[in-house]
Amino acid sequence: MKINQFAYVPTDLPQIKKELADIRFLDPRSEKIAEPLTLFKQLLLKFFLESQSLQVREEKLGDLMATKKLPLPDYTSSASSLSKNAFYNVALQLLQFQVSLDFDLDKPVETMEKLGLPTADIDKQDVTKDQLIQAWYLLLNTRTKNGQLLIDYLAGQGYYHQFKNIPKPLLFNGKSQAVFDTDKLIREVVYVESSEDSDHDGKLDLIKAEVIRPSETNSGLKVPVVYTASPYDQGTNDKLGEQLTHDVNEPLAHKKPNKLKYKDISVEAPDEKLPTDRKVKGTTDVAEESFAKTWTYALNDFLLARGFAVVYSAGIGTSGSDGVRTTGDWHETKAVTSVIEWLHGDRTAFTNHTDNIAIKAWWSNKNIGMTGRSYLGTNSTAAAMTGVAGLKTAVVEAGISNWYDYYRENGLTIAPGGFQGEDTDVLAALCFSRMQQAGDFHKIQPEWDKELKKLTKAQNRKSGSYDQFWDARNLMKHDNTKIDMLLVHGLNDWNVKLSNVFNLREELKKRPITQKIILHQGQHEYLNNFRSVDYSDIVNLWLTNKLLGYENNANALLPEVIVQDNTKEDTWTPYKDWGDDAKIKKVSLSDKWLKNIQGNSSFNDKLPKKLFDKYIKNTKSWRKQLYKFDGSSTKLDERCIRLLSKPLKKDIVIDGQISFDLKLSSSQNVGLLSAVVVDYGKAKRLTEVPTVLSPQQIITGYHWRKDDLKEFTFQKKATQYKKISDGHINLQNRENSYRSDEIKPGKKYQVEFKLQPEFFRVLKGHRIGILLFATDMDFTIRGNQDITYSLDLDNSYVSLPLLNSSHK
Amino acid sequence: MKINQFAYVPTDLPQIKKELADIRFLDPRSEKIAEPLTLFKQLLLKFFLESQSLQVREEKLGDLMATKKLPLPDYTSSASSLSKNAFYNVALQLLQFQVSLDFDLDKPVETMEKLGLPTADIDKQDVTKDQLIQAWYLLLNTRTKNGQLLIDYLAGQGYYHQFKNIPKPLLFNGKSQAVFDTDKLIREVVYVESSEDSDHDGKLDLIKAEVIRPSETNSGLKVPVVYTASPYDQGTNDKLGEQLTHDVNEPLAHKKPNKLKYKDISVEAPDEKLPTDRKVKGTTDVAEESFAKTWTYALNDFLLARGFAVVYSAGIGTSGSDGVRTTGDWHETKAVTSVIEWLHGDRTAFTNHTDNIAIKAWWSNKNIGMTGRSYLGTNSTAAAMTGVAGLKTAVVEAGISNWYDYYRENGLTIAPGGFQGEDTDVLAALCFSRMQQAGDFHKIQPEWDKELKKLTKAQNRKSGSYDQFWDARNLMKHDNTKIDMLLVHGLNDWNVKLSNVFNLREELKKRPITQKIILHQGQHEYLNNFRSVDYSDIVNLWLTNKLLGYENNANALLPEVIVQDNTKEDTWTPYKDWGDDAKIKKVSLSDKWLKNIQGNSSFNDKLPKKLFDKYIKNTKSWRKQLYKFDGSSTKLDERCIRLLSKPLKKDIVIDGQISFDLKLSSSQNVGLLSAVVVDYGKAKRLTEVPTVLSPQQIITGYHWRKDDLKEFTFQKKATQYKKISDGHINLQNRENSYRSDEIKPGKKYQVEFKLQPEFFRVLKGHRIGILLFATDMDFTIRGNQDITYSLDLDNSYVSLPLLNSSHK
Repeated sequence: MKINQFAYVPTDLPQIKKELADIRFLDPRSEKIAEPLTLFKQLLLKFFLESQSLQVREEKLGDLMATKKLPLPDYTSSASSLSKNAFYNVALQLLQFQVSLDFDLDKPVETMEKLGLPTADIDKQDVTKDQLIQAWYLLLNTRTKNGQLLIDYLAGQGYYHQFKNIPKPLLFNGKSQAVFDTDKLIREVVYVESSEDSDHDGKLDLIKAEVIRPSETNSGLKVPVVYTASPYDQGTNDKLGEQLTHDVNEPLAHKKPNKLKYKDISVEAPDEKLPTDRKVKGTTDVAEESFAKTWTYALNDFLLARGFAVVYSAGIGTSGSDGVRTTGDWHETKAVTSVIEWLHGDRTAFTNHTDNIAIKAWWSNKNIGMTGRSYLGTNSTAAAMTGVAGLKTAVVEAGISNWYDYYRENGLTIAPGGFQGEDTDVLAALCFSRMQQAGDFHKIQPEWDKELKKLTKAQNRKSGSYDQFWDARNLMKHDNTKIDMLLVHGLNDWNVKLSNVFNLREELKKRPITQKIILHQGQHEYLNNFRSVDYSDIVNLWLTNKLLGYENNANALLPEVIVQDNTKEDTWTPYKDWGDDAKIKKVSLSDKWLKNIQGNSSFNDKLPKKLFDKYIKNTKSWRKQLYKFDGSSTKLDERCIRLLSKPLKKDIVIDGQISFDLKLSSSQNVGLLSAVVVDYGKAKRLTEVPTVLSPQQIITGYHWRKDDLKEFTFQKKATQYKKISDGHINLQNRENSYRSDEIKPGKKYQVEFKLQPEFFRVLKGHRIGILLFATDMDFTIRGNQDITYSLDLDNSYVSLPLLNSSHK
Repeated sequence: MKINQFAYVPTDLPQIKKELADIRFLDPRSEKIAEPLTLFKQLLLKFFLESQSLQVREEKLGDLMATKKLPLPDYTSSASSLSKNAFYNVALQLLQFQVSLDFDLDKPVETMEKLGLPTADIDKQDVTKDQLIQAWYLLLNTRTKNGQLLIDYLAGQGYYHQFKNIPKPLLFNGKSQAVFDTDKLIREVVYVESSEDSDHDGKLDLIKAEVIRPSETNSGLKVPVVYTASPYDQGTNDKLGEQLTHDVNEPLAHKKPNKLKYKDISVEAPDEKLPTDRKVKGTTDVAEESFAKTWTYALNDFLLARGFAVVYSAGIGTSGSDGVRTTGDWHETKAVTSVIEWLHGDRTAFTNHTDNIAIKAWWSNKNIGMTGRSYLGTNSTAAAMTGVAGLKTAVVEAGISNWYDYYRENGLTIAPGGFQGEDTDVLAALCFSRMQQAGDFHKIQPEWDKELKKLTKAQNRKSGSYDQFWDARNLMKHDNTKIDMLLVHGLNDWNVKLSNVFNLREELKKRPITQKIILHQGQHEYLNNFRSVDYSDIVNLWLTNKLLGYENNANALLPEVIVQDNTKEDTWTPYKDWGDDAKIKKVSLSDKWLKNIQGNSSFNDKLPKKLFDKYIKNTKSWRKQLYKFDGSSTKLDERCIRLLSKPLKKDIVIDGQISFDLKLSSSQNVGLLSAVVVDYGKAKRLTEVPTVLSPQQIITGYHWRKDDLKEFTFQKKATQYKKISDGHINLQNRENSYRSDEIKPGKKYQVEFKLQPEFFRVLKGHRIGILLFATDMDFTIRGNQDITYSLDLDNSYVSLPLLNSSHK
């Protein structure tokens, strides 16, 4: 077990004393205590809640061991001074570590260090009063065994709720404290008037927004807002999505060559003629509608207890809102930013669809941040890129930055991992929850049918090229953002692939903003309830800075890049950058460092019908055959080229984008190439979906939401290999993704392309495997065409970007 | 999808009108409405919460379709009368079913029936006012698509919380309503003085109990209590448990023959000399200690919103309590019943461990029920069997009734499924959470070490026989219970095996009490959040009857036995009994109905070392080989006898205990036999662990706990076979589990034994497979001994208990 804290703010003694007084651990009485041992006991008695009787608390002190032999009460009454060991023995127990099991009472400081927990620089034998105060402060800001800061654990026990007149908000070590009364949260619905009419009903679209705000706002407190724009939030049409999913067993079509330049396919949002604004007939401060939510984001709930309001809105075409779904274009973004504009005081919202009674976000401090993963993070990115006023930051988890990178790649129609055959129309239908309100749908059905057809046609699955349809869905196209961003992505995310966050980060680098990125070992996962990393605290620090305007030094304190190691459990390391300063190792594919397993330089893509049918039903069995580097014969030996390097003499870290530069031909006038780079070597690897360590273990506020404690842990069994990265390219798009060139059958062309960016450690003794093939059962269309691909391996290269170790 | 409701109470019109007035759907104003259509609209407007504005609610009415063409507002303003179809179109939408996807607006009544939902007997075209009232009442008591009664869904939305002065408790259709204010729940800790001193410290053990009660009790309301006695509740020592787990790769030992009779090994609780009671130094009504819980049982939380207090207590040897763990004997039971006695006013509790200030359960109505699964259910059974006053019912889910049936079987040491090597000592150490309070543990460690050693010795893993140790842990031994019981068990539970619930039920049958049983298709699972069955409502009905004393006819209404079918999804069927009235089909093992796959009648148990090592590491691969009935050669062909029946000409249902009567010999003076009966035939089978249909979908009360919606669904792939049941016997225990007889090598003995009771449908065309072998890698000890077993198949029989179809 190892715990990694990044969000601790180094604090000097006067400030420590002030903050401990703010949260009621120090008071005029404790000022007068001269004896460190006495003060230690007083602090512990406060730790066990002053709302409980003294005797109850004394008994809890008796449950703690101070030394190998002495329970705490015996120690405080017999020792002449407080030792560092005694302090950290008690500290570890308060942090929920178990004596004997987790640590030895003779070696608490060593254990703290081994666990990665901070210890104060205090005397070994005679801890002074000031040292004790410093150590206690640090301890409260240390993570427990169960995934929370100790002060947050205490808040969940009711520490803050025992005091009357506790200030709200209350900051401690730069982070907002759980002092708000979640029992009294106010939940209300408003309808924001957006400047669009996506369902063409002659009226501006009203967008439903659900607000949860502290009741303290009713007494005049203005609060920051965390806004999550989830298109799934009002329900999804799963069956319809399934029905609309496209058949991917279709041949790759020839594209007519063109000489397109980017300007030919660049689009701007059209100047649509809009209906006039609704005429405001009156105003009110009181909403007319309330709600009870099923799914909520646990991180948002954590923030609710800490004085942030939370707003959910699903956008155009969802239940309660007007409009139709359009998957990623400006219509959708406009709905998202409309809510921000309302929260910032720049736009009108109404209490219902009919009466035109306006209601303001009078309780908002006008500082809005966005949160959420996947499509939710996508909407955060989209909003951030518009530069909309009021949005002060976005925490983007696994967001799409360019929809082309979600459904297409280098001129090919490519699936998000696990969703073969999905496309913009499928997703639009999936999220079109207006359909679930039959009466509302009844009015809009013809318009929806039309829009859906338009989408299906315009996305042009036959082509795969970047065109105006996709240019309208490139969220990075207009980079007006002026805000600091926190990006989070899983290094095993093959759904929203890493190019999305990599490219976004590269774009953001050009601007004078602060951005941070956290790369974890999950696939498409949330990170707010892990033991090994203080993600919730990082977000708390970040939002307290950005939305409460409190100078906690977040920008300087948080590392530029935090990466979870893929070869060890619980290991998170700060880096200066990702992918920009790597050393390139370029190797010819005929280099003797690489062994060509079958000795071939060409392959044919067509499988016998029966085998093909088996593989499309069970792509796992196909992968299993494909990834065989051990020389045993498989059914795919003539369908791919397999190269395997010599064992590595030391660890290497792939830092960024592996690229290929291949000289190859197709036997037809169409062709596609897939490349996979593999870490080959028997090892225990981390799970990509978190393991629940303890259900309902995290209490995010007093009598408030509980969350499961999770972690990426080693899989039970060692495995032989793991994909590092992959890439796919349509050979007609060898220039770029919008221009199509001719392929003359049999003629060799030079084709360069990059794989998905990664950060991947390959251990000493492991080998690098390379797979070159055509149809990728999991990602590409599957034409099973009789095409032979021939490579000139002498003139084909792989380039590995290796971490520049001075760059840590 | 199919929904099965058992807890609806048929109600006559006057009572319906009274109850609808109680919950505010009818009032003097609605009395005056003559027009059914107008009343329908009024009811719907109330459905959408009167706390919301009329306009908001009118808009929600507009979201509903009444007929294929007309939204509800158009229908109510244009139709001349209310049709049954319009009512059920709207009803289905309120129940969260989707137009087109889940039902056709032309056929709502047919859909209701297909879904298993009740419809009122009302006119097709001209629904009268009284008919409408009856249909509306029935609708509110109908389950939604998302696993709740519609009235419970409404309560979660805040329906009841909009009204001032709503009566508490409030009953509707015989069930307690979620009218209580969970925001204001009171949480307090007391320490109950038990009449035992299990840690021999010269003081009676104090047992920590955590109380959660409605704040309404502070104004004088007395409430019923739901009590869950979970030894896991204060933490578990998982690593220690692992360390103590026994090596099972040990030879089967010869037991000296004896002529023991039951009276020789029967024990009573000894008359221990006890310390005197603590002297009460004062009394109080106010507790001194509070708590915040991580895990809570969702069903208890559901009940908290409905006016039941909930009490958790972990018992002797757990954190906060005195004593040491003893796994299942009277010490443990005494701690459990002590809390009941306190809740009933018959025993003292204190506010802390030291001050001797007594505190009464002054808020309790003295009616206590118990809930919980596994060890929790075991404690419920133990308490019920004592006949303790105050306990009015127990809802026992997957409880142990006799610890011998958990860790032993027919003279053999047998593991609970998935826990090879566990025993009473391991479980005691696992639950000894006092250890986690280092200061407290420090005082008790020597005594604990002694007690643990005693346990390890006394459980006598070498023997496997029933003796005094186990007689003290047979919870059915003293059957003093006078209370009605609701039993629940998974038909695939190989952890707490079905003999536990079967034998308990047989015992209870002898007494003049009402008992009900629900058998589901899970392994060791909770059932309170399923879509297909109204388990929470059944429990609500049951506890409202038993603890609030409300005559809702629960005893007569609920079926004796409810069984979930193993061959279909979502199918729950009532039966009159389980296992007692079956037709026995007795077949000789040499009958031509059974094909002997290898043609052998003897087998040797010893495996080559390498193969043995492989199988103990991966028992799944062993099972895969063992279950091969297709005639292909396997590595176990000489280690077992495989018999396979002819295809069944019609479905049969195994109802109760399959038994074997075998004539066989062992080549040594020891021997064991394992038997498995298998359903052989390719079919889709249900998952044994529930699938999450929708996370956080169920809201159990207003702003209260959410729960995942779950179901046992068909596995994705068809499988070839499934175990129906199994059994194991030590050939020295062929008389009974306490007497040991000699085995003369080579001599054939007649050995009878029963398998675990089941309720299992085998489909027409499937075959019955029988496996006879010795070492069971998953359950028995694994000596890998060179023993040959020989059977006289002509004089060996299997008896299948078949459901008497008139018995449904």
